[in-house]
Amino acid sequence: MNSIIPVKAFGTSAPDADLEQIQIDRRTITPNDVEIEILYCGVCHSDLHTARNDWGGTKYPSVPGHEIVGRVTSVGSQVNKFKSGDLVGVGCIVDSCKTCSSCAQDLEQYCLNGFTGTYNGADTHLGGHTFGGYSEKVVVRDEFVLRIPENLDAAAAAPLLCAGITTWSPLRYWNVKEGSKVAVVGLGGLGHMAIKLAKGLGASVTLFSRTPGKMEDAKALGTDEIIISTDSAQMKSVQGKFDLIIDTVPYVHDVNPYVSTLNINGTLVLVGYLGPLEPMLHTVPMILGRKSVAGSVIGGIAETQEMLDFCGKNNIVSDIEMINMQDINAAYERMLKSDVKYRFVIDMQSLKN
Amino acid sequence: MNSIIPVKAFGTSAPDADLEQIQIDRRTITPNDVEIEILYCGVCHSDLHTARNDWGGTKYPSVPGHEIVGRVTSVGSQVNKFKSGDLVGVGCIVDSCKTCSSCAQDLEQYCLNGFTGTYNGADTHLGGHTFGGYSEKVVVRDEFVLRIPENLDAAAAAPLLCAGITTWSPLRYWNVKEGSKVAVVGLGGLGHMAIKLAKGLGASVTLFSRTPGKMEDAKALGTDEIIISTDSAQMKSVQGKFDLIIDTVPYVHDVNPYVSTLNINGTLVLVGYLGPLEPMLHTVPMILGRKSVAGSVIGGIAETQEMLDFCGKNNIVSDIEMINMQDINAAYERMLKSDVKYRFVIDMQSLKN
Repeated sequence: MNSIIPVKAFGTSAPDADLEQIQIDRRTITPNDVEIEILYCGVCHSDLHTARNDWGGTKYPSVPGHEIVGRVTSVGSQVNKFKSGDLVGVGCIVDSCKTCSSCAQDLEQYCLNGFTGTYNGADTHLGGHTFGGYSEKVVVRDEFVLRIPENLDAAAAAPLLCAGITTWSPLRYWNVKEGSKVAVVGLGGLGHMAIKLAKGLGASVTLFSRTPGKMEDAKALGTDEIIISTDSAQMKSVQGKFDLIIDTVPYVHDVNPYVSTLNINGTLVLVGYLGPLEPMLHTVPMILGRKSVAGSVIGGIAETQEMLDFCGKNNIVSDIEMINMQDINAAYERMLKSDVKYRFVIDMQSLKN
Repeated sequence: MNSIIPVKAFGTSAPDADLEQIQIDRRTITPNDVEIEILYCGVCHSDLHTARNDWGGTKYPSVPGHEIVGRVTSVGSQVNKFKSGDLVGVGCIVDSCKTCSSCAQDLEQYCLNGFTGTYNGADTHLGGHTFGGYSEKVVVRDEFVLRIPENLDAAAAAPLLCAGITTWSPLRYWNVKEGSKVAVVGLGGLGHMAIKLAKGLGASVTLFSRTPGKMEDAKALGTDEIIISTDSAQMKSVQGKFDLIIDTVPYVHDVNPYVSTLNINGTLVLVGYLGPLEPMLHTVPMILGRKSVAGSVIGGIAETQEMLDFCGKNNIVSDIEMINMQDINAAYERMLKSDVKYRFVIDMQSLKN
């Protein structure tokens, strides 16, 4: 039987209940484990959707959080990659089968047996389900622990673990490089990272926005061009322009106007919206321009490390607003109103006080 | 002013009129032209749609036909690539700007200024619109004339010029090779060529069919597996299997069940259906498997020549039913009932009699 460590966490017991302080169990380290004292945890929309059971399937008590940055406090006997004191991160994945064809290609995010989510996954060690980063400590299999470059602001690096890799993976898979023309739909946690990472890769970056209000903010992030998607003249000016469009919008919306702005062989990749495409996707612009509509989810572990190293080298982090753990319920309400630039990050010190 | 040659053709003067013998003008050759005596012309669904103005925009009289095989009878002073007597082909494209970024990449099918269709295009030489291959002769700019391998049956090679290249281009663009797993939706003119060409490239090929009736035919074409798409157990057996699905179905249909049979990173490419995707395309399987839905139209000239050479080397032609020019109206009716295995080809000798 596994021995356990009781740790403080913030979680919820029901879809309509506030998050509050609870106690959860972490396993004591096995030979392949890394024990991490959590310093910061980013707040992702998925946290809120899971806490409130928006997607169904939430197991309670639910402790969200999969943008974790912390310090190693202890490692198992077979762990060589990390030692106490290392600055590390944990993203959305804490385990996968490591044997399927996806895992064999470092695509743990597409593990054919289903990866283990950092929260709400099946806990193969203690039984029950996994608990996320809204807590003092986490214990994670070493292959799923990332190294955070020490030159980065540790709090602002936390959102790289989900918002960062979710946009980095399609940028890399669709081969964005110097001179590529990239557009981003939506300026939130994902969108602002997509802009920074695409710029870092040498692309010219256009932001599609529904309102002119975001112009100054988008410029400050490095955006080369802002197109107001409700202005038909502006939309016409970018017909056939983009090699890749990263669509971060998390609710149903018409993608057809964006498909028309793809260049020949271009791809629009959906990373935010899970559901049927309504209005219906029209095939004519796709067929007459060999255009694709695709989807992508987070990224693999090796790719996440690649992204973190790239961010270290290029000094890229998220723009964040720091909160205390006790502020999480108010933060969720603000997120629902898109009232955050661009990511809340929890200072986990607040949980200890 | 251009001088002209009157030639016999078969065309129609109105959407609801039968095709009948008419006389059209061809230009006398300019220095870059090739004059071709048409031996055979395949009958494509687009011919019927254009003749009947199903897509709008048909100019009358309309002379369809863009799967043309013939013998060179005369060449312009600057033509070095062809000489009298050569067996040649003309597909869907008889001209393009040759200066845009698509043309510069040998992607004349995606010419940003619009390629000139073999029929119903703008005739820049004589004014008016272009006339297709249901005629005795055609005069075509040399860069748009293809060489037909002499070892192939000339009549059965005709459908390669549209049905062949339409399926070849996505097979090549999405890198189908030895060991690839390809599925084909729909067993008509396009579908039967997709099977032959994918097999030729070394892929294993599955046919999705709505009814078991096509099993023997599909096997005879080289299909490795037939999945009855209305049988949920059979559909379940191929979940996550295919690298590429070529969907040749020309009418609205639910693509979601096919998307689920794509492997991680797989693509479903639509080559037959022009319109909105109904029922709505669901993004979840796309996002959770990095799957794409794309479109593709015919192919470029260099790629068409590559396909013809490949067919010559591998002895691949279409399965055809030969008809006389005078049978075209009855053939259209049979095509509407999918009563052809798998392509009608007109013996143009019949027009001369």
